[in-house]
Amino acid sequence: MPSRIVTLLTDFGLADPYVGIMKGVILSRAPEAVIVDLTHEVPPQQIMLGALALRSAVEFFPPGTIHVAVVDPGVGSQRHALAVATHRHVFLGPDNGLLALAAPPNERQEIRRLENARLFCQPVSATFHGRDIFAAVAGHLAAGTALAEVGPRSDTMVELEFPAPQRRHGELVGTIVYIDRFGNLVTNFDVPSLAAFDKGRVCFRLKNSWVYGIVPTYASLPVGGVGALFGSWGLLEIAVRNGSAATVLQARIGDEVVATQEKRR
Amino acid sequence: MPSRIVTLLTDFGLADPYVGIMKGVILSRAPEAVIVDLTHEVPPQQIMLGALALRSAVEFFPPGTIHVAVVDPGVGSQRHALAVATHRHVFLGPDNGLLALAAPPNERQEIRRLENARLFCQPVSATFHGRDIFAAVAGHLAAGTALAEVGPRSDTMVELEFPAPQRRHGELVGTIVYIDRFGNLVTNFDVPSLAAFDKGRVCFRLKNSWVYGIVPTYASLPVGGVGALFGSWGLLEIAVRNGSAATVLQARIGDEVVATQEKRR
Amino acid sequence: MPSRIVTLLTDFGLADPYVGIMKGVILSRAPEAVIVDLTHEVPPQQIMLGALALRSAVEFFPPGTIHVAVVDPGVGSQRHALAVATHRHVFLGPDNGLLALAAPPNERQEIRRLENARLFCQPVSATFHGRDIFAAVAGHLAAGTALAEVGPRSDTMVELEFPAPQRRHGELVGTIVYIDRFGNLVTNFDVPSLAAFDKGRVCFRLKNSWVYGIVPTYASLPVGGVGALFGSWGLLEIAVRNGSAATVLQARIGDEVVATQEKRR
Repeated sequence: MPSRIVTLLTDFGLADPYVGIMKGVILSRAPEAVIVDLTHEVPPQQIMLGALALRSAVEFFPPGTIHVAVVDPGVGSQRHALAVATHRHVFLGPDNGLLALAAPPNERQEIRRLENARLFCQPVSATFHGRDIFAAVAGHLAAGTALAEVGPRSDTMVELEFPAPQRRHGELVGTIVYIDRFGNLVTNFDVPSLAAFDKGRVCFRLKNSWVYGIVPTYASLPVGGVGALFGSWGLLEIAVRNGSAATVLQARIGDEVVATQEKRR
Repeated sequence: MPSRIVTLLTDFGLADPYVGIMKGVILSRAPEAVIVDLTHEVPPQQIMLGALALRSAVEFFPPGTIHVAVVDPGVGSQRHALAVATHRHVFLGPDNGLLALAAPPNERQEIRRLENARLFCQPVSATFHGRDIFAAVAGHLAAGTALAEVGPRSDTMVELEFPAPQRRHGELVGTIVYIDRFGNLVTNFDVPSLAAFDKGRVCFRLKNSWVYGIVPTYASLPVGGVGALFGSWGLLEIAVRNGSAATVLQARIGDEVVATQEKRR
Repeated sequence: MPSRIVTLLTDFGLADPYVGIMKGVILSRAPEAVIVDLTHEVPPQQIMLGALALRSAVEFFPPGTIHVAVVDPGVGSQRHALAVATHRHVFLGPDNGLLALAAPPNERQEIRRLENARLFCQPVSATFHGRDIFAAVAGHLAAGTALAEVGPRSDTMVELEFPAPQRRHGELVGTIVYIDRFGNLVTNFDVPSLAAFDKGRVCFRLKNSWVYGIVPTYASLPVGGVGALFGSWGLLEIAVRNGSAATVLQARIGDEVVATQEKRR
């Protein structure tokens, strides 16, 4: 039985009716579909941010969920449109790396190109494949169309490299990859990347600020205090208790965060 | 069988709980309803923008869908509340033109005034008819109440004129009617209005900028390049590839866009 | 039969995927759940504003609805997580006052602490109890788990005092507790608090502006005119017809609004 759950992740925002239109297209084909918005506020055309948000979310959805992701600066060009199946989920989106972190190579079972035009909204516009291709195919899949119907298999897809922290002069140089609504600074340090450090004595340098140690929770910090912790993205975050680290530290996506071993003792 | 799909379009925003409350009212009457947000970010009290967004969306919803639209600066006044049926859909909203483009005269089958107070939330507030009248009636309709129950037939409703481009000194003067999240400038030029122009040689003047020709897709433009194309609204858009035309051209809703035939050759 | 309706109210915003993730967690446990967003734009960590929004919404939902509210500056600390049942609804949220206005003492039937870790997402993160505890328990309840399963009963919970207007020199001093998207200034004057005033002769002082009388509806005002009326929150609002009182009067949450009896006549 196909899943009835279809998630949507786009950079369309919610001010325009584009997302609502995609839902109409899906429900026209799959009246029983349950549609869940992951986010539509990916900054326009920021594929990496969309890929990270998608990766952070998919594990919390039941097997068989269909994830539609559209951050698509190449719409109307020759880039392919893909369906990617893992052992748990199906992903639909442009072949530009957007799906590559949520459906990493070792979990992929099948890649197909969306080329069966009988499943699309006709005529296919040049500007809104989210509606005419991705939502339309998602609706058909949610209604029970077999994955093999969407188009031919492909051996490859565009990959996206999650930027790993880099060694430099005995330090480990990471970067801020995401800033959430609370102003938490999400870095590219995952747990393994910091395994060589002593958790109580690692410290992080961000511009001229230093953060000592890794705390277990926001509430471990004094109100207004700055700290580092592993957050819900599975990545190290720099946070301010009941405040915004982005504001306090004047930080932006792309800023360096340098991990080093404290030498005080 | 009545449709289970109810769409909502308002100028209520999502920061306040108003939209969630409307959904509670609908689900209290129609537990099986599937509610889809078209947009709640219509600029406050901008009836034309709401009417355009509604018109752009409805064709993608299945027959029997109930569309609730509330952009209602006259709430609490003597303006009527309407149900308008076309051959495909039912529309509920204030009688102020908001429904007039999505349910144009030649498609209307029936206009009724919402006057059956037994269908409303009681007491009806003076400030929130979206909840007390429109959502309440939508819930009843989605649960199977016949349209004839909502109130008496009416022969007329307030119309809204989509502003057609105007001839002036041999040029065709249009206007920007909408700017979307990507900064695309949506004009009031539809395909027929530009039929007399040679597609490759038409050009558009916006303040001191000139755009030559109509391209098929954003991807036909160089990155950062400005172009004109027919977008997903069925209207000519001025766009910047991977950028914001609104920012690049310093354009606003209401600005003139003048179509003229290029005379270079 | 358990309700299938689960509402969500948070301060998470919609730009991050956090809310979508909560929905995945709920649907993984209760595939038939109907999830309604009340709002996710509670200003970060503003418990009173969240409590007011929740209170304004719950009466419009059907019996058995499960309301999940997460405005949780103490996440990861020793604050308890609660389920509170009234005769109509179940509320889940942190024990910090957020639930106290929507489930007031005289309506409570049962308070329980969420301590049955078998119902949580494992491992429970230190930073995202909205996902790991509240959404997870909501999903189980929506799927039919008995309330008694969530954890032990408690006799008390953190209360929140809705700030009542105060007498001062024969005047009644209120305050702005909420400003909505339209710029309407929602005060803490409810109908009983103004019962001693003559409705036609009460007037309100906000900084250096005076508003005379209470009108029944926005449409009773001239366009651009300032007036006072009881709005959909059940509270007195200062409004500008087709404009923003917040802008016109330069008002903010927390500003004083003083009610007095007009003495002109």
